[in-house]
Amino acid sequence: MRLLPLIAALSAASLAVPAQAQEPAKAVTVSSPDGSLVVSIGAGNEGHPTWTVSRKGKLLIAPSRLGFLLTDGLPLDRGFAVTGSETATGDETWEQPWGERRFVRSHYNEAVVRFRQAEHRGARLLNIRVRVFDNGLGLRYELPEQPGLKTMNIAEELTEFRLVPKGTAWWIPGGEFNRYEQIYQKTPIDAISTAHTPATMRLDDGTHLAFHEAALVDYSAYWLKRADGQTFRTTLSPSSRGAKVVRDLPFATPWRTIRIADNASGLVENDLELNLNEPNKLGDVSWVQPGRYVGIWWGMISGKWSWATGAQHGATTQRTKQMIDFAKKHKFRGVLVEGWNKGWDGDWFGTGFDYSFTQSTADFDLKAVTDYARKQGVRLIGHHETGGNIAVYEAQLEDAMKLYGQLGVDVVKTGYVADAGGIIAPGDKPGEVRMEWHDGQRQVQHHLKVVQTAAKYRVAVNPHEPVKDTGLRRTYPNWVAREGARGMEYNAWGPFNNPPGHEAALVYTRMLAGPMDFTPGVLSLQGSNGVPMSSTLAKQLGLYLAIYSPIQMAADFPESLEAHPRELAFISQVPTDWAESHLVAGEVGEYAIFARKDRNSADWYVGGVGGAEEHSVTISFDFLEPGKTYTATIYKDAPGATYQTETRHAIAYETRKVRKGDTLELWLAPGGGAAMRLAAGK
Amino acid sequence: MRLLPLIAALSAASLAVPAQAQEPAKAVTVSSPDGSLVVSIGAGNEGHPTWTVSRKGKLLIAPSRLGFLLTDGLPLDRGFAVTGSETATGDETWEQPWGERRFVRSHYNEAVVRFRQAEHRGARLLNIRVRVFDNGLGLRYELPEQPGLKTMNIAEELTEFRLVPKGTAWWIPGGEFNRYEQIYQKTPIDAISTAHTPATMRLDDGTHLAFHEAALVDYSAYWLKRADGQTFRTTLSPSSRGAKVVRDLPFATPWRTIRIADNASGLVENDLELNLNEPNKLGDVSWVQPGRYVGIWWGMISGKWSWATGAQHGATTQRTKQMIDFAKKHKFRGVLVEGWNKGWDGDWFGTGFDYSFTQSTADFDLKAVTDYARKQGVRLIGHHETGGNIAVYEAQLEDAMKLYGQLGVDVVKTGYVADAGGIIAPGDKPGEVRMEWHDGQRQVQHHLKVVQTAAKYRVAVNPHEPVKDTGLRRTYPNWVAREGARGMEYNAWGPFNNPPGHEAALVYTRMLAGPMDFTPGVLSLQGSNGVPMSSTLAKQLGLYLAIYSPIQMAADFPESLEAHPRELAFISQVPTDWAESHLVAGEVGEYAIFARKDRNSADWYVGGVGGAEEHSVTISFDFLEPGKTYTATIYKDAPGATYQTETRHAIAYETRKVRKGDTLELWLAPGGGAAMRLAAGK
Repeated sequence: MRLLPLIAALSAASLAVPAQAQEPAKAVTVSSPDGSLVVSIGAGNEGHPTWTVSRKGKLLIAPSRLGFLLTDGLPLDRGFAVTGSETATGDETWEQPWGERRFVRSHYNEAVVRFRQAEHRGARLLNIRVRVFDNGLGLRYELPEQPGLKTMNIAEELTEFRLVPKGTAWWIPGGEFNRYEQIYQKTPIDAISTAHTPATMRLDDGTHLAFHEAALVDYSAYWLKRADGQTFRTTLSPSSRGAKVVRDLPFATPWRTIRIADNASGLVENDLELNLNEPNKLGDVSWVQPGRYVGIWWGMISGKWSWATGAQHGATTQRTKQMIDFAKKHKFRGVLVEGWNKGWDGDWFGTGFDYSFTQSTADFDLKAVTDYARKQGVRLIGHHETGGNIAVYEAQLEDAMKLYGQLGVDVVKTGYVADAGGIIAPGDKPGEVRMEWHDGQRQVQHHLKVVQTAAKYRVAVNPHEPVKDTGLRRTYPNWVAREGARGMEYNAWGPFNNPPGHEAALVYTRMLAGPMDFTPGVLSLQGSNGVPMSSTLAKQLGLYLAIYSPIQMAADFPESLEAHPRELAFISQVPTDWAESHLVAGEVGEYAIFARKDRNSADWYVGGVGGAEEHSVTISFDFLEPGKTYTATIYKDAPGATYQTETRHAIAYETRKVRKGDTLELWLAPGGGAAMRLAAGK
Repeated sequence: MRLLPLIAALSAASLAVPAQAQEPAKAVTVSSPDGSLVVSIGAGNEGHPTWTVSRKGKLLIAPSRLGFLLTDGLPLDRGFAVTGSETATGDETWEQPWGERRFVRSHYNEAVVRFRQAEHRGARLLNIRVRVFDNGLGLRYELPEQPGLKTMNIAEELTEFRLVPKGTAWWIPGGEFNRYEQIYQKTPIDAISTAHTPATMRLDDGTHLAFHEAALVDYSAYWLKRADGQTFRTTLSPSSRGAKVVRDLPFATPWRTIRIADNASGLVENDLELNLNEPNKLGDVSWVQPGRYVGIWWGMISGKWSWATGAQHGATTQRTKQMIDFAKKHKFRGVLVEGWNKGWDGDWFGTGFDYSFTQSTADFDLKAVTDYARKQGVRLIGHHETGGNIAVYEAQLEDAMKLYGQLGVDVVKTGYVADAGGIIAPGDKPGEVRMEWHDGQRQVQHHLKVVQTAAKYRVAVNPHEPVKDTGLRRTYPNWVAREGARGMEYNAWGPFNNPPGHEAALVYTRMLAGPMDFTPGVLSLQGSNGVPMSSTLAKQLGLYLAIYSPIQMAADFPESLEAHPRELAFISQVPTDWAESHLVAGEVGEYAIFARKDRNSADWYVGGVGGAEEHSVTISFDFLEPGKTYTATIYKDAPGATYQTETRHAIAYETRKVRKGDTLELWLAPGGGAAMRLAAGK
């Protein structure tokens, strides 16, 4: 039995279409500033809060349910009526301290719709706010203070998306062993299982969508679960404590966002999630410094050195000083050192009980190293691997950040290497632990605690095995980058190699979330045991323009970098902070060429990555300043190169003058890429 | 970062294939009695318990992980080694008190593999038992008594299925609003999202599979979640209390089962889950009586009468007595009456706070009705709708069952009408509630409690909105049927009509789990407001042979049944208990024709359902006893009939003699069906 007796009371007319497909009664409608995107919110015919989205007159999301399951009370999903609503408009331009572009415009119309549940179902109040931009929308729940509900114990969030038009999706599975470190799948939309966000779709009419969320604070991340057909709903990442989210009222959920654009560049040049986050809460953040870095890391990843102490230990004082010298010589700001601290000598994967974040190994003199670095004008980049054990880490967090602050270590890479569901959080009593997910409420709280603690000591944070990025760098600009995808390191592991189209998928999926510490710049193009990468040499340079991060590594061994002096010269001066960024050519999963303007000069940089197949693209230099002549230094795939043979090392160089209005034909090899600097003339 | 440092320590050779694709080391292998099915279990190269399945020399399930996440301790998923194993063989034939066949053979080889986890990961013991039949397998975890683990707080079960061959699947989504009441999807296997079980697949080589579970006791049901590609894993139904399952050691999980056969009949004529359940624990169950029934129900479902009191109240003393007279006249054993008790007058959907299970409404005299029924040789079938409120129901359960026992009500239909996640269970303190799922551990416990309490009073149970069936009728033979799928009632709701192929999908999916109270026999072929069903008249008779239940309703109004005297005559004598059952013709989702032998006579019955398209099938009477002549009374679709027009009412009758070796051409209309009685001559 299903939904009687309400159905029995309905007229024949109202039975003509299934209940969930009906337009909500008393719907409140709000349009984007240009009128193209229209969202309406109301109560469906069993009192389900319901929303609908159309674009350019076409139905995009059919009437879809909204609400919550609770662990300790009747669901907030039916028996609601609209009691009121308000609308507003916003238009502001704000400045980023660092990023892909300096100025960001936020222009939207919004509505908040007030719902009240029937008396016998609890008479609870629920507000739904929607903010509609020309290139996307955000929807969130707001739980106002109310007599009958002090704390929400949320078992599940029931936000539904009944997507109408058919199309193709690029996605990785949510809730699986390996967190976000998956190869992107390209499937029909109706062959998604449960996806992490951002999940990107191209509808058959060419419209591009990306489902994600903004301002994930004190809440669980959601996975986009497909029910069947093209009906999706939110599934919150689990908690060990019953309710997936516990919040005192009043509070607002993160925004559920959909970027919507006519093409791929409209998806990429889109600040929807940043605009839905709160402004900078840290005040002066001039101490957050973008920059390039090298490190003692690729040696461990590729199996030559070890994190553990012993003959192969990577993090020695001597090796670090050598790396500092190298960094100084080639204009790298930072030197990352992993394995400098105690705790690496056992099987720490998913355990991490032995880690100290303040005590170094006998062969590593932290004070000497940071002193030496300071003298050379280089900064040590700190490292806090936890093995997923945040119980151990949080107990030392304040001391650990304080230590780094004192030593001038102003960026720390953190790590949470554990299987999904294997985060070890403190229990209620000494000796007890609670096992959590990398993207559950507890870990979301943890990450913000780390970022806030680091900020006290003027340290920026770069978590690996993180929770996904939801634009919080706007509010906390010391949250400079994250991993949260398959990075370069997979190319060190032979058979686990990233496929040649991996980065061209990342640009349109993971990278919509925010900066990634991908660690490009392995110019030797090989991993452990000489297994070749699915990359040309030019692509290694293109990665600096395709995969944005304010901190960009050159991951290879110093000797491998110096073996390619022209490429190293490019890497040594490619900016990591931009005034403008534009996707000048690209299709999801196929290729991505950006033009980016240096924030500290009049120079432009153009480049990016290809995919599995070769591509010939025409670059129009429309973005250049009129009347100016630029000297283009071009690095590109040599004719006939392919990642599949030794020709992957074949690169071609060219220097030419370019002006606004010029065009350039650029050939991208299979697994290829390109990069160029456009130095502004007088 | 992913799985270092273990990878770093591996040789180049072992890196040649991804870790998860490697055969486990020290694997224990067990084959089915005929050798066709081979399962091996061992430890993968990071100590993951791992299993592999092949059939007839072809890999069916590539090495797949096994294990658990806990809420309060390190995962039981890595760092394990095999410490020992044992094998055994079983071959027995046992008798069912009622069912599709009287005698069931259980013939298998089994192995139990003993694992121990590394010291620093907890040194925990985990045994995995696999039982391999010629037509399927079961795998379960056994947690032996051990020093370091008294109670398992299971966050998730990590049983993985990396299915290799491609194919087609029939499935409904798991974890969605409407529980199991979904229309079956037919998609490629790699377009499943998250499925309830049984989930049925046909591989491209014709092999048929059905994923399910057996002996779901004191545990959460699992949903078959697709990660990506054809990799699936178990997702346990949620709990409001953190751990999805809480169990003291020692205990065993339910069996994870896969039926495997060369064709559709091998899937259907398959007692895998029954064989994996414990024998009858109730002793003498002669009081569990199969039979046909009618009821005061279709009137409410179709909107003519009401459950609530008032002018339209269905459950009046007078109407019930009339229904008893009708039942007696047409040889129905039972009369179901819904709405006889107090509590229906408000909006009870998902609330159910007002229900009494012992107090009747003013216009319904329970004592008078049951006295009258007894005199007529008819039994009242009880009804306990809870609105999902098991807090209210459990408080009255003993009294309610005792009352029915005293009055000779020996079957009760229970109901849990609430949204998924909306079961209202008692909280820890008075006034508190815990919200649970229809298939979570708490509700699984509830159902068994109801069945056991009912058994004390010699009452059989037929839950609607139940947990899925996993063969527990073997252990508790008073658990006679369930709903747990879209039944006939959807045809009363106009636009929600079941599609014409619905029942031909049910036979190969939901019905693999066990008996369903589908409630066939709506001979008027119309729902509320005269909306026609996607069914011919002959199909209504065929349903009695296609959809097995020991209690079978004739759902239509008495006057509609009597308007079809020949069809009513068939329904009035079709058995509900069989000596043998065979699928003599059928393909998943297309059609299903059964031959079933009456358990109480030498008669056979043949019939079933078609699908959306017409089918011509040849029935071979090979199953008949040699040398005997049978008189076949045949009900079939008239030539040209289709569910799409008024010809749905067109039925043809035929009587002929048949003998073993004869064949019969049978045409099934679109939305059609057929039924025949083969009365054994001397």
